[in-house]
Amino acid sequence: MGQIRVGMVGYKFMGKAHSHAYRDVSMFFPDTPKPVMKFICGRNENGVKQAAEQFGWESYVTDWRDLINSSDIDLVDINAPSDAHKEIALAAAAAGKHLFCEKPLALSLSDAREMLKAAEEAGVKHMISFNYRFVPAVQLAKKLISEDRIGQIHHFRAWFLQDWIVNPEFPLVWRLQKEVAGSGALGDLGAHLIDLSHYLIGDIHEVVGMSETFVKERPLPNKMTGLSAGIDKDAPKGQVTVDDATLFLARFENGALGSFEATRFAAGQRCTNAFEINGSKGSIRFDFERMNELELYFTEDADDVQGFRRVLATDPAHAYMQAWWPPGHPIGFEHTFIHETVELFTAIEEDRQPSPNFTDGVKCQQVLEAVELSIRDRRWVKIDKL
Amino acid sequence: MGQIRVGMVGYKFMGKAHSHAYRDVSMFFPDTPKPVMKFICGRNENGVKQAAEQFGWESYVTDWRDLINSSDIDLVDINAPSDAHKEIALAAAAAGKHLFCEKPLALSLSDAREMLKAAEEAGVKHMISFNYRFVPAVQLAKKLISEDRIGQIHHFRAWFLQDWIVNPEFPLVWRLQKEVAGSGALGDLGAHLIDLSHYLIGDIHEVVGMSETFVKERPLPNKMTGLSAGIDKDAPKGQVTVDDATLFLARFENGALGSFEATRFAAGQRCTNAFEINGSKGSIRFDFERMNELELYFTEDADDVQGFRRVLATDPAHAYMQAWWPPGHPIGFEHTFIHETVELFTAIEEDRQPSPNFTDGVKCQQVLEAVELSIRDRRWVKIDKL
Amino acid sequence: MGQIRVGMVGYKFMGKAHSHAYRDVSMFFPDTPKPVMKFICGRNENGVKQAAEQFGWESYVTDWRDLINSSDIDLVDINAPSDAHKEIALAAAAAGKHLFCEKPLALSLSDAREMLKAAEEAGVKHMISFNYRFVPAVQLAKKLISEDRIGQIHHFRAWFLQDWIVNPEFPLVWRLQKEVAGSGALGDLGAHLIDLSHYLIGDIHEVVGMSETFVKERPLPNKMTGLSAGIDKDAPKGQVTVDDATLFLARFENGALGSFEATRFAAGQRCTNAFEINGSKGSIRFDFERMNELELYFTEDADDVQGFRRVLATDPAHAYMQAWWPPGHPIGFEHTFIHETVELFTAIEEDRQPSPNFTDGVKCQQVLEAVELSIRDRRWVKIDKL
Amino acid sequence: MGQIRVGMVGYKFMGKAHSHAYRDVSMFFPDTPKPVMKFICGRNENGVKQAAEQFGWESYVTDWRDLINSSDIDLVDINAPSDAHKEIALAAAAAGKHLFCEKPLALSLSDAREMLKAAEEAGVKHMISFNYRFVPAVQLAKKLISEDRIGQIHHFRAWFLQDWIVNPEFPLVWRLQKEVAGSGALGDLGAHLIDLSHYLIGDIHEVVGMSETFVKERPLPNKMTGLSAGIDKDAPKGQVTVDDATLFLARFENGALGSFEATRFAAGQRCTNAFEINGSKGSIRFDFERMNELELYFTEDADDVQGFRRVLATDPAHAYMQAWWPPGHPIGFEHTFIHETVELFTAIEEDRQPSPNFTDGVKCQQVLEAVELSIRDRRWVKIDKL
Repeated sequence: MGQIRVGMVGYKFMGKAHSHAYRDVSMFFPDTPKPVMKFICGRNENGVKQAAEQFGWESYVTDWRDLINSSDIDLVDINAPSDAHKEIALAAAAAGKHLFCEKPLALSLSDAREMLKAAEEAGVKHMISFNYRFVPAVQLAKKLISEDRIGQIHHFRAWFLQDWIVNPEFPLVWRLQKEVAGSGALGDLGAHLIDLSHYLIGDIHEVVGMSETFVKERPLPNKMTGLSAGIDKDAPKGQVTVDDATLFLARFENGALGSFEATRFAAGQRCTNAFEINGSKGSIRFDFERMNELELYFTEDADDVQGFRRVLATDPAHAYMQAWWPPGHPIGFEHTFIHETVELFTAIEEDRQPSPNFTDGVKCQQVLEAVELSIRDRRWVKIDKL
Repeated sequence: MGQIRVGMVGYKFMGKAHSHAYRDVSMFFPDTPKPVMKFICGRNENGVKQAAEQFGWESYVTDWRDLINSSDIDLVDINAPSDAHKEIALAAAAAGKHLFCEKPLALSLSDAREMLKAAEEAGVKHMISFNYRFVPAVQLAKKLISEDRIGQIHHFRAWFLQDWIVNPEFPLVWRLQKEVAGSGALGDLGAHLIDLSHYLIGDIHEVVGMSETFVKERPLPNKMTGLSAGIDKDAPKGQVTVDDATLFLARFENGALGSFEATRFAAGQRCTNAFEINGSKGSIRFDFERMNELELYFTEDADDVQGFRRVLATDPAHAYMQAWWPPGHPIGFEHTFIHETVELFTAIEEDRQPSPNFTDGVKCQQVLEAVELSIRDRRWVKIDKL
Repeated sequence: MGQIRVGMVGYKFMGKAHSHAYRDVSMFFPDTPKPVMKFICGRNENGVKQAAEQFGWESYVTDWRDLINSSDIDLVDINAPSDAHKEIALAAAAAGKHLFCEKPLALSLSDAREMLKAAEEAGVKHMISFNYRFVPAVQLAKKLISEDRIGQIHHFRAWFLQDWIVNPEFPLVWRLQKEVAGSGALGDLGAHLIDLSHYLIGDIHEVVGMSETFVKERPLPNKMTGLSAGIDKDAPKGQVTVDDATLFLARFENGALGSFEATRFAAGQRCTNAFEINGSKGSIRFDFERMNELELYFTEDADDVQGFRRVLATDPAHAYMQAWWPPGHPIGFEHTFIHETVELFTAIEEDRQPSPNFTDGVKCQQVLEAVELSIRDRRWVKIDKL
Repeated sequence: MGQIRVGMVGYKFMGKAHSHAYRDVSMFFPDTPKPVMKFICGRNENGVKQAAEQFGWESYVTDWRDLINSSDIDLVDINAPSDAHKEIALAAAAAGKHLFCEKPLALSLSDAREMLKAAEEAGVKHMISFNYRFVPAVQLAKKLISEDRIGQIHHFRAWFLQDWIVNPEFPLVWRLQKEVAGSGALGDLGAHLIDLSHYLIGDIHEVVGMSETFVKERPLPNKMTGLSAGIDKDAPKGQVTVDDATLFLARFENGALGSFEATRFAAGQRCTNAFEINGSKGSIRFDFERMNELELYFTEDADDVQGFRRVLATDPAHAYMQAWWPPGHPIGFEHTFIHETVELFTAIEEDRQPSPNFTDGVKCQQVLEAVELSIRDRRWVKIDKL
């Protein structure tokens, strides 16, 4: 069994989650090719040096080009801010490296398409990190739908609700700046919902949306670290240029109706990434805050005992769970990254494209852009027109 | 303390609920004027006769005109199918009777406006039966918002989910026929959500919606009773002419964003009439299936103990609950009708309009019609343009 | 179909609940014999007069002997404080009246046995008001066990948790005085759990218990009303002579293990009357605060979808629910009294003993007394030794 | 900052959990002394060799004496079956190694005391792995109690419910054999509840218990692996010599009442390690199946918004959570071992005893033995008599 040598760009929130996955995957999935944690890259030398040591990378670089040009690397993992994805991915593909990219793939649909094309032309493997697909409970949802145990899907409704910027004094971090982040709640949170809908329901036909920036100016931060930042007393304010919340309705190709909401203004909802699916044979409910659970309803249950059952997706019957602990022992957020690493590395070993890959990233970007267009023009937008 | 003499039209689901309220209100609210259950009216003599006896009415009539012309009646309570509301209401107003009407007020906005105008010109009291306002937990939500304990509202999302027609063999009852029911999930279920949003959030500025009829043909029933009906083997099929599901997005006048969904195709959701409100100081969640509970979040709670609290709205501190049982003892669906009877009868005694009244019925109808227009024209529709 | 003429003693909490049941039962269960609300009895003439009027009784008396001697009464309903049950029941039986008695049947096992004997010798029908048996969700639990869908029972654990006297300044009401109430949490709350265990699991073989009075002195009330009372500033204190909390372990005759807890000191638990049953084929969970729900687990469910399902016991498939509202519409506390009235009146009509009857009251008393003995002697006590 | 060189005995369930903690702790807690994973020990050479490689140990041994005698080891971590704990611990203490031992400390109280004495005399640090103390939500419970935010404790009730041996065909694994495991549900599950009660409430004064072995004979396994095992068709049966379920009542030194239940026969309860605490100022609820949540009630909340709040213990205000992900991102079972490693290593660095240590192990064993004695003698047993 081979090894795969990884070079990673970015060392903050996602960089840490990916590093941890590389560190742990072989302990729980010994049959998966082993990652070799070669290089980590970051612009701030002190920061990246400490991260390399703390996370367990062999060495670090401060220029991502060094990493891509190295012959010691098989896979480039891109966790840099969204505005840097494209340039790195194109260069890495050109250098014949496999690609693993955080979402969103790029800041625009055309950029995303260019990245996909580059990856395909280079003949490399490409994966996008829609990690919520890899929650075992979500995999169970997928399995039930695939096995026709939910029937024809009528409804998909999904919410990604957070509350970290409800306070108007929260500083203007990079995630609130359009030129770096591309968009706000829509691209950050809505993208995950869109991908889950593609995974579970199918293609979206058309959308109509609305969005709002509730707090239009925020104090400028003195120093940015991860999701938050410090602010000085009487700090000057800057313009928030992304959406605080975006909602949209969707019609799927298969006739299902969709409702999507992404917001950072749902007080008390720390990270409610939730969906409900209603089909002709049953229903499915999921909420990431209780990620080990899936609620299921089957119309065929006996008349007197019909009800949503709360399945703890921690049994051997559930995807990936054989590798972990006995039934009933919860797993957490970072396990999703380990599972997607299993998929990526197995795909490389089996010489097939992993799933989800850049095609899924492009499809997600297409819907994001359709939603934005529908908001701008105040009308329904068909996805295949983009 | 006076008495109010009631004549009621309709004796099925809503007729039973209203009858029960008249029967019980004085036992639990002895300070409220006492209803005298004079006449009940229905077209089927056997049916209405039995209902009169069973529900406790003094006598019955089979023509609603008899009831309206009687000098023994102070209040006409209209629970007939929606297409009959207007004619009865206009006649009753002309006869100087107070009006109590089930929702929807009418099948069209113009009809609803005509009814309001008639009631106002006649100088009678008029109430519309948006009974979910009278759930004590919902009253608590209203109180918290009014007292500014939730802050500025950013989000209102609401679902009325049922599943009674998921089975394609369920018969074509009157609620699935446009000419009698006006609309399907939208008018039946969505109307309640719209009214709750008016009550809790405020006026809606504009909407955009979508709808679907998943099962387009259904077996014709042999006999209709209440919500269901019998069907013969190999019964011929008829066209379903109302919506199985309607969703819409809304922008409120105060800047809040709204998401509404009404469906009869949510397998496993027997009667999930639920909403969530997110404000700058806190959040509120309600689900009618657990109608005695309200979930609340306050941003001002201490850092280490922030979370949604599940308030059992059965304490003396909660509206109407002093009249019932000790804390922790649940009340049920029919209590909402008793509470709205208290409001109606108190308003009549105090010579003021009850709330909600026909004005609220008109406002609801306005939004319903805007949603339908937005679906037809595939565009945003401003409420005040109607 | 006949009528049954009722005379009732007591007009506070339980008197109100029973009155309401008589008032409403024929509206929802028209095939059940009709109650005629003849006399209500209370010692305070003003109080009972007002209650008679408010609740709908034809007339009132202030001495229960007048009621028992009346030839206009078929059934005597005893809601007086527990220390008065026996004398009234014996006299009523002697007068040939059917008996309906609130729990606990009496203050001692020997008194309870005397009451049962008197009823049997008089050949009258006798029922005890263990109303929680009549929650549809509890009836569903019973049905599943009877149909062997839960298998052999291994565990029964039950809690009746309240919090109304956590505050040490709460006054010394009659329920906290042994000579009137018999016991505290044990007799008031534990009695319900014991009866539910008899109903659902079977006879108890032996018990061992413990109890505590956390607040040993409380302010004397100036005036007692229902569950609460007023207190004057600097009111003198009196001794609390009943248990604030009692816990006991039990072994059932069929080998199941039982755990029981009754307390009035569970802060935040307004009325958590809950149990869990584990059997070889499945499990059952119930909590009265969500009385319309039953949680069920079946070992035979498919491997990948095993989990507790939350059944809303409001479908036509559930006991008594055909009489009420469409699926998903909650019922409340007082419905349990209506359902037990259906059982009592039907039993009288069918000339059979209702269930639960005084035999069940005696059995409950036997366990209560065994628990008290086990606490006094600090040892296991076998039920059949009493 | 120093390093601590670890030798570990045992490589199955707990061995894996501990190995993972050593592997990951420095990535998330860089200020904690770094573990060096020197030796892993197991009797089966193939097994331990593979484990060493998979888990990341430098090398392996098959005789624990080799490990203890090595001068390259600072700390001995004992995850062997319970019957081997004592011998290894005594030898390791004699060799001057720090000790980390899985629970239960030993098979008897006298053995446990001997181990504590040996550790104290050797002057080494000693820790016992009661890992549930290290759930952040449990740490929050401890904090609230310590800060007197719950008031005087009245009740502690706790359940550890599993269902892995409900099926009578489940084989007779070592955990069902008294000579290896010491006891069944009591020692395996009850021990955790007892320690949590010591941690949160205080010392136990006396206990009375009951237990049962529901399935008395089981098929003998052909090969044992971890928690489960294979069985041949028509395998012979052997005697189950431990308890399937044990319940006991307890009185704490501070006057609180306790109720404990440990069972492996709660169908559907995969790993419900749950407790509820009621105090004079509030209540606390925890369930390990939802380990990121703590439910809290405070009597001082405003009258109209009193209710249990569900706190997601994933905020920076919660113990250990700064090291992990943003608020709302769940952690899992294995994180508890990382947190206890932080405590152990920090204690070694600071030259103080970690908490919980062998003293806590002895105290737990004392209660376990008192419970067993109370079951044997059918009476209350005072803890300090042992």
